[in-house]
Amino acid sequence: MKQYLKLDEWKIIEDKFHPEFNEVTESIFSLGNGRMGQRGSFEETYSGKTLQGNYVAGVYYPDKTRVGWWKNGYPEYFAKVLNAANWNGLEITIGDEIVDLNQSHINAFYRELNMKEGYILRTCSITLNSGKSIEIKSIRFTSMADDESGAISYSIKAINFSDTIQVNAFVDGDVVNKDSNYDEKFWDEVQVGVAENTSYVWSRTKKTEFDVITGQSIQLTVNDKELTSKAQSKTRTKYSELKYNIEINKGDTLTIVKYAVNLSSENHPQDQLLIRLNAYLSKITQKGFEQMLQEHAAAWETKWAINDIVIKGDVAAQQGIRFNIFQMNQTYTGADDRLNIGPKGFTGEKYGGSTYWDTEAYCIPFYLSTAPQQVAKNLLIYRWKQLGRAIENAGKLGFSHGAALYPMVTMNGEECHNEWEITFEEIHRNGAIAYAIKDYVDYTNDRKHLVEYGWEVLIGISRFWAQRVNWSENLQKYVMLGVTGPNEYENNVNNNWYTNYFAVWCLKYTLKVLTEIQTNYPLKAKEKLVQTNFQSHEIDKFEHIIQNMYFPRDEKRGIYLQQDGFLDKVIEPVDSIPANQRPINQNWSWDRILRSCYIKQADVLQGMYFFENDFTKEEIERNYDFYEPLTVHESSLSPCVHNIIAAKLGKEAKSYEFYTRAARLDLDDYNNDTEDGCHITSMAGTWMSIVKGFGGMTIKDNQLNFDPFLPSQWDEYAFKISFRSNQLAIKVHKQGIDIDNLSNTPITLKVKGITYTIEASSKQVI
Amino acid sequence: MKQYLKLDEWKIIEDKFHPEFNEVTESIFSLGNGRMGQRGSFEETYSGKTLQGNYVAGVYYPDKTRVGWWKNGYPEYFAKVLNAANWNGLEITIGDEIVDLNQSHINAFYRELNMKEGYILRTCSITLNSGKSIEIKSIRFTSMADDESGAISYSIKAINFSDTIQVNAFVDGDVVNKDSNYDEKFWDEVQVGVAENTSYVWSRTKKTEFDVITGQSIQLTVNDKELTSKAQSKTRTKYSELKYNIEINKGDTLTIVKYAVNLSSENHPQDQLLIRLNAYLSKITQKGFEQMLQEHAAAWETKWAINDIVIKGDVAAQQGIRFNIFQMNQTYTGADDRLNIGPKGFTGEKYGGSTYWDTEAYCIPFYLSTAPQQVAKNLLIYRWKQLGRAIENAGKLGFSHGAALYPMVTMNGEECHNEWEITFEEIHRNGAIAYAIKDYVDYTNDRKHLVEYGWEVLIGISRFWAQRVNWSENLQKYVMLGVTGPNEYENNVNNNWYTNYFAVWCLKYTLKVLTEIQTNYPLKAKEKLVQTNFQSHEIDKFEHIIQNMYFPRDEKRGIYLQQDGFLDKVIEPVDSIPANQRPINQNWSWDRILRSCYIKQADVLQGMYFFENDFTKEEIERNYDFYEPLTVHESSLSPCVHNIIAAKLGKEAKSYEFYTRAARLDLDDYNNDTEDGCHITSMAGTWMSIVKGFGGMTIKDNQLNFDPFLPSQWDEYAFKISFRSNQLAIKVHKQGIDIDNLSNTPITLKVKGITYTIEASSKQVI
Repeated sequence: MKQYLKLDEWKIIEDKFHPEFNEVTESIFSLGNGRMGQRGSFEETYSGKTLQGNYVAGVYYPDKTRVGWWKNGYPEYFAKVLNAANWNGLEITIGDEIVDLNQSHINAFYRELNMKEGYILRTCSITLNSGKSIEIKSIRFTSMADDESGAISYSIKAINFSDTIQVNAFVDGDVVNKDSNYDEKFWDEVQVGVAENTSYVWSRTKKTEFDVITGQSIQLTVNDKELTSKAQSKTRTKYSELKYNIEINKGDTLTIVKYAVNLSSENHPQDQLLIRLNAYLSKITQKGFEQMLQEHAAAWETKWAINDIVIKGDVAAQQGIRFNIFQMNQTYTGADDRLNIGPKGFTGEKYGGSTYWDTEAYCIPFYLSTAPQQVAKNLLIYRWKQLGRAIENAGKLGFSHGAALYPMVTMNGEECHNEWEITFEEIHRNGAIAYAIKDYVDYTNDRKHLVEYGWEVLIGISRFWAQRVNWSENLQKYVMLGVTGPNEYENNVNNNWYTNYFAVWCLKYTLKVLTEIQTNYPLKAKEKLVQTNFQSHEIDKFEHIIQNMYFPRDEKRGIYLQQDGFLDKVIEPVDSIPANQRPINQNWSWDRILRSCYIKQADVLQGMYFFENDFTKEEIERNYDFYEPLTVHESSLSPCVHNIIAAKLGKEAKSYEFYTRAARLDLDDYNNDTEDGCHITSMAGTWMSIVKGFGGMTIKDNQLNFDPFLPSQWDEYAFKISFRSNQLAIKVHKQGIDIDNLSNTPITLKVKGITYTIEASSKQVI
Repeated sequence: MKQYLKLDEWKIIEDKFHPEFNEVTESIFSLGNGRMGQRGSFEETYSGKTLQGNYVAGVYYPDKTRVGWWKNGYPEYFAKVLNAANWNGLEITIGDEIVDLNQSHINAFYRELNMKEGYILRTCSITLNSGKSIEIKSIRFTSMADDESGAISYSIKAINFSDTIQVNAFVDGDVVNKDSNYDEKFWDEVQVGVAENTSYVWSRTKKTEFDVITGQSIQLTVNDKELTSKAQSKTRTKYSELKYNIEINKGDTLTIVKYAVNLSSENHPQDQLLIRLNAYLSKITQKGFEQMLQEHAAAWETKWAINDIVIKGDVAAQQGIRFNIFQMNQTYTGADDRLNIGPKGFTGEKYGGSTYWDTEAYCIPFYLSTAPQQVAKNLLIYRWKQLGRAIENAGKLGFSHGAALYPMVTMNGEECHNEWEITFEEIHRNGAIAYAIKDYVDYTNDRKHLVEYGWEVLIGISRFWAQRVNWSENLQKYVMLGVTGPNEYENNVNNNWYTNYFAVWCLKYTLKVLTEIQTNYPLKAKEKLVQTNFQSHEIDKFEHIIQNMYFPRDEKRGIYLQQDGFLDKVIEPVDSIPANQRPINQNWSWDRILRSCYIKQADVLQGMYFFENDFTKEEIERNYDFYEPLTVHESSLSPCVHNIIAAKLGKEAKSYEFYTRAARLDLDDYNNDTEDGCHITSMAGTWMSIVKGFGGMTIKDNQLNFDPFLPSQWDEYAFKISFRSNQLAIKVHKQGIDIDNLSNTPITLKVKGITYTIEASSKQVI
C-alpha cells in the first residue's frame, strides 16, 4: 500500500518525484482513447526505472506458448497485447548533456493526471551536472476527438545559461514486449521515412501481419515565436528522427509541439496508410495543439456529463471512483465490435489477450448504464462473431455437435491461456457470456437481439453444458466433474455449485428464449433453428438435466457447498491467518492454498449475486455469513460482489468497507502490482459497488428498482444512468433521495419497493 | 510398434540398416557400466537422424525451470542429466570424401548388441559416391572391469581402391542437451590438450562445477602391422583431435583402436585429474583392446551367473528379459551411494533427474535378489543422506517440525519437478521410500539398519503424513485432500485410497520400528530419538490417525474407491474406447482424460500389490475385476503390477499377457518413444513379473515363499536369487519345480504352501 499521490477530486497528483514508484505512476498516468493508449512515461530520456508501453487496439501477436509440461489441448500461441512504436520520444541535449531526470538534481517536480480534461501535465525544475538549470513543462494527451492521434507540448526554459539545445524528436518502433516468452521481437519494418518536420515508422507484426504506421510532426517555438529551422533527419531500422539545433539565450523558453498519429491496417487499407498518415498529420498540425486539446476536453466533458459519480464528504472516495470511470472510458469506447476490454487496458502488457469473462461479468453493466445501447451490444456481437472459434475450441477438447466453449483469454476467439486447471476447467465463463445476453436484453428490452444474435450463442453454450455433465449412477443425478469455479484457489473440483447452477440456468434460459423467439419472430426463429441444426430431442435432454442436476448442499447450515467435499476442509476464518502471511498467494505454497478453505473471490456468493431473485434474503445471508469470513479477496474482482450483497443484506458498514478496498486499488497500489498496469476490468466493479451496491439498482419485472442507502462516511453521492429512452440523475443525501428524469419521456420505477412515475424533465424527491 | 530387430537369445540384431529408426536403435544399443554410458551412435560421421549422447553418472546441471504460470513452491531449477564430451568421434576421409552412411550406398549392414559380453558390433559394406567401396567393422564397449573407460576397435578395408585415408580421432566436449530449457550450453572449458597419440578435453559444468576430463589414446594398424605415424594434432574450444594420413592399398585393412577415459571430480581430486587421466590411458592402452574386452566380458559373465533368467520355448521372451536385465546392470551397479537409477539410464536425456519413486517401488526388489546386499542398502542410504533436503522441501510447502517430503524428481535431494499436481501432490512417493526400508530389512534381515538409518527417514516421513492429513468435522475422520495417486490421469483428488492407506501404514510401521529399536538397540535408539527430537505425544497423534483414517469404499461392490467421487464418473471398460483413440494420452484432451474413469497405471491395485497380506484373495479379486478393465496401462510401470496380481489370483493367461506387454516395450518400441531413450526403471518391473509374478516369490514370516506357475507358452524358465546367505537357482518346467541351493548353508522355504528345507549344495525337486 502506497500513499504518495495527493488527494484531489479531479486530479491525480504527484508533487514530489518518487523515482522508486515511477513504474506505478506510469501505470496510473496512462492515457488512452479506445483506439490507442500509452503508459505515462516521460517524453525525454530517463535512465531510471521505467516501462515504455504504447498500444494499438486490436493489434496483437501470437507469441509461442511457454509451458513446463505440455497437455493435450493446450493452444500453441498466446496472443499478446503488443508494445508498439513509441511516439513520445524527445531526446534533449544541452551543450553536451542529455536531459535525464535520473542524472540531474531535481529542484521541484509536479505532475498530474487531469481526469476532467484527460491529459497529463508535468512541471519540473532541474539542475544538470554542469550547473545549468532548466524548467520543463509538458502536457500530453491521446485525443478523444481525433482518436488515432495524440499530442505533446513540451517546453524548456533556460534559467541560468545560453547554449545550443539539440532536440531529437523520434518515433521508435524497435520495441520489445517485456512479457515476450522467448525474447523475440514481434515487429518487422515495412518502411521508415522522413520529410520536412515529419517522420514515420511503418511496421508489420510477424505472423499476424497487422500494419501500423506511426508518424510525428514537429513545431518549434522560442518565446512563442515559431522557428523555421529545418530538421536534420535520420532513419534506421524501425526508427526515424528529426533533429534540431536551437540557440537559446538565458531566460528563453523553447517549446516543442509534437503531433502524433497511429494508423492501423485494422482500420485503413494497407496501400492508403502512408497517404492517410500524412493527411491526418496535416489536419491536426493545422488544427494546432490548443484546438486539439480543447476538442479533446470537450469530448471528455460529454462523457463526464453522463458518467460522473459525485461523492461529497470524502475526497479519497471521490478521486477513486473518478479514476475508475476515467480508465474505463479510456480503455473501451464501444465504437468497434472487434475490440474488447483488456484486463490492463492500455496501461501494461500483463496477462496478454484482451477478452476475459470480466467483460461480461463486470464491465457490461457499466457500459449498459453509462453509454449508448450499441456499446454493450457491440460487446455481445464480439462474442457472437467468435462463436465459430468457440465451437472449434470445444471440438479440440472432445465436444461435438455445435457445443461451444468460449476461451478463457482471447484476442480473435482462439484460446490463448495454457493452464489446464483454468483453460480446460474454468468453464463457468460460458455462463457469464450467456448471462450477458439476458442482462442486455432485460436492461435495454432489445428483444430482437435474442433471435438475431442471442440464440446461436445460447444454444452453443447449452450444448456444451449438456455434454459436459454426466449421469452419476451413484448419485442418480447429473454431476459436473473436474472444474474450477470463480474461486481459483480450488482446482479440478467436482460439482462446483456456481458452475452447476449456471449450467442449469443456461439450459433454462435457452429454452425460454426458444419459446420467446418462436412466438415473437417465428420465421426468423425457424431459420435460426435450421441454421443451428436444432433438434427437438435436445429440449428433452436439457429438461432432464434441469430436473436432475446435483447441487452440493449442507442441510445443517442451510447453505450450498462450494463443491463436493468442501466441508472436509479445516474451516477457519481468514482472521486466523497471521497478518504477515497475507496475501496468502504471496506467502503460502500453492499446495497449502489449495488445501485451505480460503476463497480467492466470491464463488457461491457470485452465483447469488447473479441470481439474487432465486433465493430468499435469509438464504443469501446464511451463505454470506458462512463464506465471506473465508474469503481473502485476492482477486480484484471480489470486493464489488461482496459490497453489493452486503448492501442487500443491510450490512452497510461492511458494504462500505468493500467499496474502499476496491475503489483505490491502483491509486494506493494495494496489491503491490500496479507497476504492471492498472486493474481495468475490476474498475467496472467499483462503479457497480456504488450504483448496484449503495444505490441498490436492479431490473425487476421489466422495471428499474433502487434501494439506496448513504454510507455514513459520506454527505451525499450522485450518479447518472441511461435506461432505455430515459436519462436519470440519482442523488442520495442525508435528507433523502432525489431522482431527476433528464429525458423527455416519463419513467415508472420503484424506490425501496414503492412505485413512482416521474414525468419528463421532472425530479422526484423521496 | 516396430519389429525390425531380429530375435536372438543373447543378441539384439539389426541386419539391414533402418535409418528411419536410427534413434530408436541408438537407444536400444546404449552402453553403460554404472559410471558412464552412451547411446549407440555410429563412430564415424553420420548426417542422418542421430542423437549423440554421452553421460557421466552423478554429473548434472541445474537448468533454469521453464514454466507457463509460476506457482509458489516451484523449484527454480530442474537438474538435467548432462550430455558430456563425446569420445567416440572418428571422422574418416578417403581422398576428399567423408565416410557417412547417410551419403553412401549401403551394400550390406549388420549390427548387434551382444548382451552376453556387453559390446556393440557393426559390420557394413558401403560404396562412396566416388565408387570406392569399403568394409567397416567396429566393436565398442564401456568397460565393466575398468569402469571409467571404454574402447573402440574400428577397421576399414579398402575393397577396390588405393588412396590416402585421413583419420581424425577426436574428443568433442562442445555438446548441448537436446532438452535444454533455454538453449543454453552447460559446460565451460577448463583445458584442452594434445600429446603424441593422445588428447583430452577437460570441461566444467556451469553452476554445479563438476569437472570431467575425457581423453583418448589412438593406435593404428594396417593389416595388423602397427603404424608409428605421428598425429597432426589440433585443439579448439572444448575439442581436441588427432589427425593421421595413411596410404592404403587396395585390399588393405586399416584398424583404429581408440581407448577412452572419463574421469569426474566426483571421484578424483581436481588437481589430479590430468595426471590420473594419463595414467589411466597408459594402463588400458598397455592392456590392449583384446585384453580389455576379455576382462569386460568376464565381468559380464559374473553378472549373468547371478542375474540371468533363462526362458525355453520363446525366443522373443528370452531376448526381452535379457535386454531388461542387461540394461539394469548397465545403469546401476550399486557401487556408489551417491548414485541412483535414472528413468532413462544412460540411454537418453528425457525426464531429467536421476531419482524417482521408481527406484524404491520397482528397482530395489531386483537389486535385493540379484546383487550383493550393499547395493540395495546404498540406494536406501542415498535417501537417508538426502533427508535434510526432504525436510527443507516440506518446509517450503509449509510443513514443519522435521516433516520430510522427498522430491518427485531429484539429483541431489532438491526437488526438480514443476507441475503442481505432481510436484506438490504426488506425495505417495514418500510411502514407497518408507516401504523400501521394510522391504530391505525383511529381505536381508539387516535389522540394525532400522536404528542406523531407517528411523530418521521413517519419522520424517510419518511427521509429514501426520501434518498432511486433517480432521474432517464432516466425516469425523482424518482425510487427505488434494493429492495425485499413482494414477496420474486424476489430479488433485481427495482421499486417494492408495495414498491414505500408505500414510497409515507408514505411521504404523514407524511405531513398530520405534518399539523394535528401543528393544534391540536401546542406547542407539535413545540417541536417535533425541537427535530427531521425538516427543512421546507424537505416538498419540500417530495412533489417533491410524484409528481414524477415512478410506473411500463402495460397500455394494465390496471395493475400495480410488478416491472420493470415483463412482460419479461414467464407468465404461477400456474396451469401449475405439482403437484409433488409443493411447488416450496421445488422442484425447487432458480435460477428457481427467474426467474419464480411465486409469494410467495401477492405483488401488498398486496398494494391494504392496500390502497383499492385508487383504483376502476375494477382496483383491473384486478390486482387480473392477479396476483392471478401466486401466489403460499408459505408464510402463503398470503391467508388472497387474502381472503379479493376476498371477496371485490364478489368472495365468492374463498374467502372461501383461508380461509380454512389458518385456519388449523398448525392443518393439511399443509406445513410439524409445528414440528418447529406454524405459530403464520399468525394466526392473519385468524382472519382477517373472520372479514375483510367475515365480510367486514373496517373503512371509521371515521366510522365502514361492508359488510358481509355468506360462503355457513356455517350456521352462529359470532364475537365480540371492537371499541372505543363500544363493538359489529356481527352475520351473513342465514336470515341476527344481530349487537348487547353490550355497553352503541350508535354507528353509515354502513352495506352494509346503515347507522344505534344502541342504547346502542340494536340489529339491517338487
